[in-house]
Formats: sequence, structure tokens, C-alpha cells
Amino acid sequence: MNGLIMDYQLNIPLIMKRAETVYADKEIVTRLPDKSIHRYTYADFVKRAKKLTLALQKLGVQPGERIGTFCWNNYHHLEAYFGIPGAGGVLHTLNLRLSPDELTYISNHAEDRVVIVDKVLLPLFEKFKDNIAGLRHVIVAAPEPSEDLAEGYLDYEKLLAEQDEKDFVYADPQENEAVAMCYTSGTTGRPKGVLYSHRAIVLHSLTAASTSVMAMSESDTVVPVVPMFHANAWGIPFTATLVGAKQVFPGQYLDGESLLDLLEKEKVTFTAGVPTIWLGISIALDKQPDRWKLVNGLRMVVGGSAAPEALIRNLDKHNLKVIQAWGMTEMAPLGTMANLPSYLLDSPSDEQYAYRSLQGTPAPLIEIRGRGEEGFIPWDGQALGELEVRGAWVASAYYNSPEGADRFTEDGFFRTGDIVAIDPHGCIRIADRSKDLIKSGGEWISSVDLENALMGHPAVAEAAVIAIAHPKWQERPLALVVLKEGETASVNELMTFLQPRFAKWSLPDNIEFIEAIPRTSTGKFMKAALRTRFKDYTLPNVEF
Amino acid sequence: MNGLIMDYQLNIPLIMKRAETVYADKEIVTRLPDKSIHRYTYADFVKRAKKLTLALQKLGVQPGERIGTFCWNNYHHLEAYFGIPGAGGVLHTLNLRLSPDELTYISNHAEDRVVIVDKVLLPLFEKFKDNIAGLRHVIVAAPEPSEDLAEGYLDYEKLLAEQDEKDFVYADPQENEAVAMCYTSGTTGRPKGVLYSHRAIVLHSLTAASTSVMAMSESDTVVPVVPMFHANAWGIPFTATLVGAKQVFPGQYLDGESLLDLLEKEKVTFTAGVPTIWLGISIALDKQPDRWKLVNGLRMVVGGSAAPEALIRNLDKHNLKVIQAWGMTEMAPLGTMANLPSYLLDSPSDEQYAYRSLQGTPAPLIEIRGRGEEGFIPWDGQALGELEVRGAWVASAYYNSPEGADRFTEDGFFRTGDIVAIDPHGCIRIADRSKDLIKSGGEWISSVDLENALMGHPAVAEAAVIAIAHPKWQERPLALVVLKEGETASVNELMTFLQPRFAKWSLPDNIEFIEAIPRTSTGKFMKAALRTRFKDYTLPNVEF
Repeated sequence: MNGLIMDYQLNIPLIMKRAETVYADKEIVTRLPDKSIHRYTYADFVKRAKKLTLALQKLGVQPGERIGTFCWNNYHHLEAYFGIPGAGGVLHTLNLRLSPDELTYISNHAEDRVVIVDKVLLPLFEKFKDNIAGLRHVIVAAPEPSEDLAEGYLDYEKLLAEQDEKDFVYADPQENEAVAMCYTSGTTGRPKGVLYSHRAIVLHSLTAASTSVMAMSESDTVVPVVPMFHANAWGIPFTATLVGAKQVFPGQYLDGESLLDLLEKEKVTFTAGVPTIWLGISIALDKQPDRWKLVNGLRMVVGGSAAPEALIRNLDKHNLKVIQAWGMTEMAPLGTMANLPSYLLDSPSDEQYAYRSLQGTPAPLIEIRGRGEEGFIPWDGQALGELEVRGAWVASAYYNSPEGADRFTEDGFFRTGDIVAIDPHGCIRIADRSKDLIKSGGEWISSVDLENALMGHPAVAEAAVIAIAHPKWQERPLALVVLKEGETASVNELMTFLQPRFAKWSLPDNIEFIEAIPRTSTGKFMKAALRTRFKDYTLPNVEF
Repeated sequence: MNGLIMDYQLNIPLIMKRAETVYADKEIVTRLPDKSIHRYTYADFVKRAKKLTLALQKLGVQPGERIGTFCWNNYHHLEAYFGIPGAGGVLHTLNLRLSPDELTYISNHAEDRVVIVDKVLLPLFEKFKDNIAGLRHVIVAAPEPSEDLAEGYLDYEKLLAEQDEKDFVYADPQENEAVAMCYTSGTTGRPKGVLYSHRAIVLHSLTAASTSVMAMSESDTVVPVVPMFHANAWGIPFTATLVGAKQVFPGQYLDGESLLDLLEKEKVTFTAGVPTIWLGISIALDKQPDRWKLVNGLRMVVGGSAAPEALIRNLDKHNLKVIQAWGMTEMAPLGTMANLPSYLLDSPSDEQYAYRSLQGTPAPLIEIRGRGEEGFIPWDGQALGELEVRGAWVASAYYNSPEGADRFTEDGFFRTGDIVAIDPHGCIRIADRSKDLIKSGGEWISSVDLENALMGHPAVAEAAVIAIAHPKWQERPLALVVLKEGETASVNELMTFLQPRFAKWSLPDNIEFIEAIPRTSTGKFMKAALRTRFKDYTLPNVEF
């Protein structure tokens, strides 16, 4: 027997309709390429998103067709987030940090038919534009209509000016229809596409808004620093629009000082990005602690890779509250969040920091488990296993890619490739990526634990630990360390610093100082490059 | 083209699974019939809910069968909220405030096959038990196993003791399946059943947890004062379990002092109930302002009927934050909530109070509109129309009841029967129930506005305004006033108090003092009774 409840499809148009009716006078702010500020209201945004829908329909966009975006975080991009779904298209955000070859592969694999490009990004786009086989239209977006576009480009502002938003009719798509697409930046293998449904995005938004997760509400002012081409900026533009938060987009200016100026000026209460960004902010604040007046308790969600405890502590001194999260493109992307649980509210600050440097507990509608070498691991905070997830916005397959099929278990879980311990409250600690784990004589050594410990040393800016082949132990750890400008430290000094924290067999066999750690387009350490560089490295003989 | 996302059914078992794995050590507290306190953990609760499922399965409960509950708010009732769905049964909460005749009708209409009854409520239950046609089992719940049960009753504790929770297997029901049922207490016509789906309850819970709505989280301690037999206690037991809040159940002790004792002792941060309850608390606090040490800023959601501004102001003085909500059994029940919006955060307190005495903006996944005599009303805060709603947890029909079919529009909205104005931000003001509205010479007069104004007078405890037939104007308002104990006021004095606030034609033609206002089982004014009592009343001649 079914319940007698309305058939109410969870889709993107309902978010936009709410923005239009309940939050019409809320503000959306963008830092433009010339650094000036663009402001308009939710009412303006909805009017223009409707016009974009109408323009795409006139260009012949068919339901289900992929429409690419190649944009910074700005109001045009937000309009595309809603205007493309309005026309039944699938929003495909292209990652502008990738190489032209990767972008060629991805855009062809996704079969993008139209791409919306920021005018400032045209030089980059033109490096692969002609390689996109089925591309029909390129729409160029800039704050003002462009009179100087080359043949074959359409002007975003002119297209919109030709539309009358009164012609717009809200579609009511079925919730399982595809609406957005992101490619994983995968450090191994070909990039793979994840195809989000309307339902996944609405449920993700609703959950992110809950007080146990991102706690986003109408009274927040939100800056997604995480790019809108990376897992939908962690869903923040959808969540913020659903709850009617004031939205602030940083455009292309992501350095510490530019961001701090924006956070201060717009009285921002919530922001999100990778640790590198907050490191930049931390350094800028240490240099000039009194320059910026920020909102007290400004929440900074950090994800993409783990935030070192030292960074969390330092930002706390400036009244900025780092909250760690973990997710993946394959999960839209939110998996876990490390809001302080009630049992730690009155604990000593060291215990609180220890918790806040973990990756947190699963969001509602997400289930987790860890698979060890001998079945599922106990939730004891110690045993390590590969994290598997299941939930309302987790991918069930990659788009047209049999290659990734082994990432999905027979009983319906996704293998994340992350090695975790899970504590009795379901709080995860990412010990490593499965491919970065060091397998030494049947024991697992977490490269992440060693890296975090090393980064707690005052002279160390960054550290990466990789596996080096070993005749006896199969693999042994080598630490690669970047020192802070003007600081010095010896191998012995750093080893002495590590010794009290680790079993002898899990210490690195050696430490090498390098000038920088290569990073992926999303700011993650690119250990593959380090492994290549050090593949013939000879470890010293170490007894333990 | 569909998205490639897991098929993840939104159902009650996923809430319970989360409670078991993530929140095992959180606490659930009940005030027992002997006033002592019962405490256990989420782990205990889940273990017992599983055993209840197993017991029901052994009793032959079939998927979709209705299982009644006849209980106060307590831990047994919470176990039934999850244990009945675990067995595929439909949780049907019987309203113990109704008459035996009404209960007979409802229980037969729902076709209850098993009923779980609090032992202290057996005398009440026995007044209609034998009239329930298809009843197979009655399970009697009490803190200890009962040795004195009459023939034909099963003991809840003994049934559970016979089960081994290891036999329990989580079901994964389809989200549209029925899982719970409530009857409207309808002041006119027969009670009508609303049949909730798993999906409706999960989406309702998730939305209630969001920061713009009830903002409930793991760090809250929650008391549902609203009965669990009334629209699932506004969904609070489901929401609290989903987010892992500490739950506190008041049992049968709902007077101001008993509740204040509980709020203080358990350090409660969130509670919810009808205005009558908060009025009791307000009076007790005024008498002994220093007796209880409550959590600062304790949130008290008020619904069921509008809280007078005077009550909100008075509780603020005691650092208790009343938040108004509006909903209906037909919507599981949450419709709107009046959290202060950001544009009023810096406003004078009078403006804030004016807003907080409204019913608020629609929750995410709820759409509203007002139908006036000439089409949909503008959102100007002035025009009045009947509120119509649509959304993810709104009933699409009544259970086996063609009588209510006219409450559902052809385009899929539910007619609430409430007359509202909607402001430009979507905030509703309930002006009246459509049947309570006074239609005077083509103009509508809100009985609620007059009542609220009268209740702002220091001598007035309660006021109800009803329509009296009038030869010239069709209807004219008569005010019925209950004075506070020991207070006096004349008709003239109250009329003078009202005059500056209303147009002359919308003032009552007369005021009568009465000893009490009859109420429904859920604490609402029962105006039908007053209309009957005053049906032959002769109004004085009034010029305007």
C-alpha cells in the first residue's frame, strides 16, 4: 500500500522558483575581471537565468544534451547552473586547470554541444575548441556585451537581451533525469564522468543546509572559493540558492589578500575551499593580523585534502572556524563533515583540535563502511580499511566508461579508494589514498599521518611521503619536505621530532628536501609525479 | 537521459540504521507515570525497536497493516514509531483526547489490527476496544512487565524479552510505501485519515533539521510536548533520531511546573507545542521567575494555533525564544516557520515581534499560494485568500474518504481552509480559518486579528470572535472574552482599547464575558461550540 502523498519531483526548477518568490531581494555579488564589484538581486538572477534558458532553447538545445561551461566563479556561471537545467540541458562544468589535451578528451567524451566561456578565458579555450567534434555554439560571457568577438562566437549579453522572460515556463522534470556532469580529475587513468540527477542535487542541497552539516541559512553570506567547475563548487551554489543566502563570487582572484578583502567587505559568514587557499589566508593574517575586520566565527569549510591541525589552530587565533569535510566528485561531493559533536563540547581544547583534524561523520542519507584485508573493519578508530559509501547522491556508475566498473561493489557501494579508520561514532580519519598507502612487510603505513606530523614542525611548509620499493619490506616510506622561506632544519632534527609520535617501523627511512610539491589542478599533492622523480632512489639501511 | 546515481530509497529504516551506528551512546529520557525518570541510550532504543519488529512479525503483522498506538509521549511510543515500520506495518497514532465514539470510528476506518496501549491508558482504551471490528491483539506497555493483565492482553515487555535482536534484518522498503497514518481532528465532518509515505517523512525530517527551519542538530536536547498522537509530534521524533539529538519525553505531565522541572533538569534546548502549553509556562515563570535555571535561548516552537505577540514578548523576558510555525496534519505537518529573516536582524524590536507573531515562510519543498475571490492574491501582505499548498510531504487525498476530495485542486494543490495574507517575502499571516472568517457586507473581517488584539489587553486571558447573522451585513463579529483571574474590564474599556487598531466597520458589535473558551483535543478554540451557544444572540444596533 502506498502513502497518499503528492507526486512532488525533486528538481532544480523548484530551487529557482523558491529563489524567485521567497528571496527576490537577496543579493548576489561578483568580483569582476577588472576587480570592480558587480551586484544584483535574486530577482535579477532568476530573470536572466530564464532568458538563458530561452536563448538555449532557440539555439536548438535538446533535453539531455550537455552544455559546457568554462568559467570562473561568477554570476554568469550561476545563471548557467540554473538556466541550462531550465532548458533540459545537462550542465557540464569544464575544469579550466586541466591541459588542452585533457579538456579535448573530456569535452568530446561528454559530447558538449554548446559551451559558455568567460571572455577572459577565451585564449585558454581556443587551445582546444577546434578539437571538440560536435560543438555547435560558443557563447562568450563578459560583464558588458562584446563588440569584438571573432566569427563563430555568440555574445551572452546580446543573446539575453533578445529574450523576454515572460516567455519562460518552468519545466517540472522527473527527478531522476540527468542535470549536471563533472569529470574526476583522476591522477591515474582517463578522467571519468559523473552524471548527477536532479534528485541527487536537491537532496544534497537540503542535507548540506542542515544544522549538523553545513548549517547554511538565509542569514548567511556565502563565498564558494572552491571552483564551480569542481564538483559543483561542492554544491554550494545550489544550497545557497535553496536557502536564500547572500552569495559572493570571487571571480579569478583567489590569493589570500584578495579573498580577505572580499570576506571583510561583504561581511562573509561562510566560505569553502581547499587547504591551500586557507594556508594563503593564514599567512596573510599572520603578517597583518589587524588589517581585516572579519565576521567573528566565520566558518571555513575545508575539503579536497586534509587540513593540518596546525592550520586549524592558527586560523582559530584569528577567530576563523575551520570545519573539515570529506567528499568526492562521485558523491556530489559531500560525504562527511567534522562539526564538533556534543560529547566534546566541554573537552580540553587539544581533544577538540584532534577531532577537528579528522574528516567527520557521514551526512544524513550517506552510509559508510571500511573494507579491510579480512572483511569489514570494526569502528574502533584504529583498524584501517578502504572506505565504501552508499547514499542518495552517490554515483552508481561512470558515464560511458566500463573502465571504472570495478569501483562499484555488487551490493551497491562505491569504493572510494581512501584508506580510513572509523571511530565508534562513525567519524572517519583518512589515513591515505589506497594508492598512496605504504605497504611495509604486511603492515600499512599512512603517508598522510607522517605528512601531517611533519607539517606540524615549525620549519616545514609542506611534506609528502611516498613509497619506495624495498627488497625486504616490499615498500618503505621516504619523506619529501619543503621548508618555509628562511627556515632551516636537518634530517636528524625532523626525525627526532617524529620519533615520539610513531612506532619505529612506521617512520620514514629518510627525508629529502625539495623545492616544491607538485599539485593537481584542484590543489591536491600529485604524488605520482614524485614517485616518478624518485623511482630509482636508494634508501639508506635502517634497522627497526 | 537519467543521472547515474544510486537507487537509494528514502525510508524510515535508514533513520534507525543511522541512530544505531552514529549515535549509539546518545540519550533518551522519559518521565514515567510515577514521575520517576527512565533513561537509556539510542543503542538500547534501537535494540528494543528491533525486538518490537520481531514480535509484531511473529504476531502475524502483514506489510501495510495498520498498527495503532494509544500512548503518551514516552520511550515505548518512540520504539513503536520505528518498530512498526520495521515490520512493514503502518503506524497509526490514536488521539487519546478524542471521545470513545470518535475513536471507535477512526480505529475501524483505519482497520487497526494490533494496538499498543500505555497501561495507564487502559481504562480509556477499554471504553472503545470492543468496538474495533478487526482487532487481533492488544499490547500493553509499562515500565515493568505486568503480571495483572486481563485475558486477551499481551505484555509489551514480555513480548520483547522473547526476541533476539540478532534475528532482525533491516528492510529496505520502497519510499512511496505507506508508513504512518494520522486522522485530522476535524471540527466539522467525520475525521479523515492522512497516509504518510516513508519518503514524505524522511524529506520532512531532513527539511526540519535545516537551519532555516527547526535547525535541529546532534547537540540539541529536544522535548516534543506536542503529543506523539498528533501529526507525529510534528515529526520531531523522526527528525531528532535522524540528527542524533538527545530526546526527552514528558509522559503525561504537561502542566507548566512539571515541564519547567524537566526543561531545567535535562538542560533542554528545543521544545515544541501549542500556545496553551507555553501560556502555562509563561504564567508559572511570572509567578516564580528565579525558580528554574533554563538554557539561555531555549527555542520553543509554537504551532497548532497562533501565539499572541504578548506571549512571545513575555517568554523573551525569561530568555525563552518562541518561534512560530504553521502546519496541518495533511502536511506531516510542517508548512511554514517564522525564523527572523536577515533583513530584520537590525530592526527595532517592535518590528521583530510583529514578524515573530506571523506564521512565517514556507519550508523548502513546500510551495504556497493564496486564492482570493478573484483569482490568486498578490503577495502584498494585505490581500486575503485561502492558502493552498503543494509539496513533498503534502497529502494528495484522504484515506478511503471521497468526502474530502474537494480539498484538492485540479492542478495538484491542497486547499488548507486557512485564510491568509502573504507578504512579499512569502511570509504568511493566518487571518482566519475560512469557516471562522466574518463576511460583513462583502468585506472580510479576521476573527484572529481581533482575538489577538483583545488578548494584548492586560486583563484578558482569552478571547474568541465569532460571526453572528445580521439582516443587513450578512454577518457581524461578536467578541467573547475570558478575563484573567482577579482582573476586571468593562465592554467600553475593551472597545476603547481596540478602536485605534481597526477600521470602525471591522470592530466587534459587542463583547460578552464568558467563563472559558471550549477547546478541541489539540488545544484549538472550538468555535463551533460557541457558535451554537450564541446562535440566537441579538447584536445591539451599531452605526459605522
